[in-house]
Amino acid sequence: MSSLPPIESTVITGQQPGPHLLILGGVHGDEYEPMAAIRKLITLLKPAEFSGKVTLVPVLNQPAYERCQRCGPDDLDLARTFPGAPDGSITEQIAHQATQLIQSADYLIDLHTGGVISDLAPFSGYCLHSDPAILETQRTMARAFGLPVVWGTTATLEGRSLSAARDANVPAIYAEWGGGSQCNATAVSGYAAGCLHVMSALGMRNEPVPEQPIQYEIEDNRDQSGHLQLHNSAPVSGFFEPAIQLMDTVQAGDTLGTICSPLGDEITSIKASQTGVVLGIRTLPYVKQNEWLVVILETDHSAS
Amino acid sequence: MSSLPPIESTVITGQQPGPHLLILGGVHGDEYEPMAAIRKLITLLKPAEFSGKVTLVPVLNQPAYERCQRCGPDDLDLARTFPGAPDGSITEQIAHQATQLIQSADYLIDLHTGGVISDLAPFSGYCLHSDPAILETQRTMARAFGLPVVWGTTATLEGRSLSAARDANVPAIYAEWGGGSQCNATAVSGYAAGCLHVMSALGMRNEPVPEQPIQYEIEDNRDQSGHLQLHNSAPVSGFFEPAIQLMDTVQAGDTLGTICSPLGDEITSIKASQTGVVLGIRTLPYVKQNEWLVVILETDHSAS
Repeated sequence: MSSLPPIESTVITGQQPGPHLLILGGVHGDEYEPMAAIRKLITLLKPAEFSGKVTLVPVLNQPAYERCQRCGPDDLDLARTFPGAPDGSITEQIAHQATQLIQSADYLIDLHTGGVISDLAPFSGYCLHSDPAILETQRTMARAFGLPVVWGTTATLEGRSLSAARDANVPAIYAEWGGGSQCNATAVSGYAAGCLHVMSALGMRNEPVPEQPIQYEIEDNRDQSGHLQLHNSAPVSGFFEPAIQLMDTVQAGDTLGTICSPLGDEITSIKASQTGVVLGIRTLPYVKQNEWLVVILETDHSAS
Repeated sequence: MSSLPPIESTVITGQQPGPHLLILGGVHGDEYEPMAAIRKLITLLKPAEFSGKVTLVPVLNQPAYERCQRCGPDDLDLARTFPGAPDGSITEQIAHQATQLIQSADYLIDLHTGGVISDLAPFSGYCLHSDPAILETQRTMARAFGLPVVWGTTATLEGRSLSAARDANVPAIYAEWGGGSQCNATAVSGYAAGCLHVMSALGMRNEPVPEQPIQYEIEDNRDQSGHLQLHNSAPVSGFFEPAIQLMDTVQAGDTLGTICSPLGDEITSIKASQTGVVLGIRTLPYVKQNEWLVVILETDHSAS
């Protein structure tokens, strides 16, 4: 049996019957905007104004949260550990509890950031589910969320909250926005609004979904697509200075930045391995060899 | 004997004779702007354009730097460990080597930031040295640096680079600016320029020192003054949301922010313990009980 206390959540039930939406934050302990956004939702959601039920989890991974780190004391990444195990390590137990919560829900939204080490452009994502009805619902949810990039990626990635949702046939999206060692008020408000828009798109609220321009809407079914940490990693350890900004367009071979030695006498230029749009940048300057530096959304992956 | 390699430094010697200035960065491993600023100085300093000698150390605390943390693997704070010991732990050995370097210099500038967890307003500081000539030189250096706040504090704090300089009668200042998990280009340029201005004030360069308005110039000789972590600490652990900004003026009793529980159902209001100007704010949201939240420069400490 699990030795963990139950997941700390708030359940708000609307006055009319309807579906059960689960909203997760803090899968990673150093991602703060989702936590604040979900607490904001707890104050915004009035039972008279929606139908169905919303379960809100501001801080899923409390052991990681209390370390100010991505992972808990067993150093397992919760977003690679689903569905977990009831008798496993602390992260495996949290994954197991969260999987049961996901299985009890009709829809899932999982909110993230780049964590303390990085900055991500605002985007929503989903897996290219084999069931066309679930896939279409996920597209609707991701578009309604209202961020400038919508990204559908392979359904074969394992270990994530979205994998548990996929296996339970629960339509699910995730979102990414920002990062760093503070809590950005714009992302907090934007995330809270995005969740309300998804509820409107799902018929849980009577508000219309605002028209919000999507700058890039990409589906990419290649193996490993959507695994942010795979490309453009550091060839050497050192001090990374990016030469690009989020949402810049880059060509394969363009300079993404440099890594230098302590005295600045050894400088390694980092070249893009892909063509597309910059979705993520490592911002914490010291980077170890093989850690990721830049995430590029390939806007024309059919050419590769 | 020390088992550490020697401190990595670059020495640039001017074409004319003159004093020896030591510039330190990376006393804390997660303070990035000083490292980049000192590397920038290495490229800017032309022997034909100054007299004397400059020793530049971008990353003094390399073991902490490679952990992306304030402290190295022995968890000793290098800025509390001077003068160190040649046969001590890794941080004590670095402090010992750095003390020898300070003793070899005529002047010291030690550059800092708030580290990953916090944000500091730009200021320069010095100790209220018992030797009036050294004190006056330190005032001159701190004013020339060109930041909006100049702060003279007690000479009795121990363990710091400035303590080692004090004991060696080497005029010394430190500076603080920014923080967070990125490298701010404005602070990098400002720090490099500040060091050049100090060299001008010391007669090592022929450039005039620019007139730069100082907003607050405070001397405070009370016990422990200048120890940033002493006041306005967290009464409970939790998610800190500051309600003030850097350089705001506050009265004792004003609200500095809140600390809340994961679900937001327990909220603790944080009140200022002092009257003055906000010089530093904890920005990493999760804070443990008793960790510092806000640094206030007391603008009228004579009243207390």
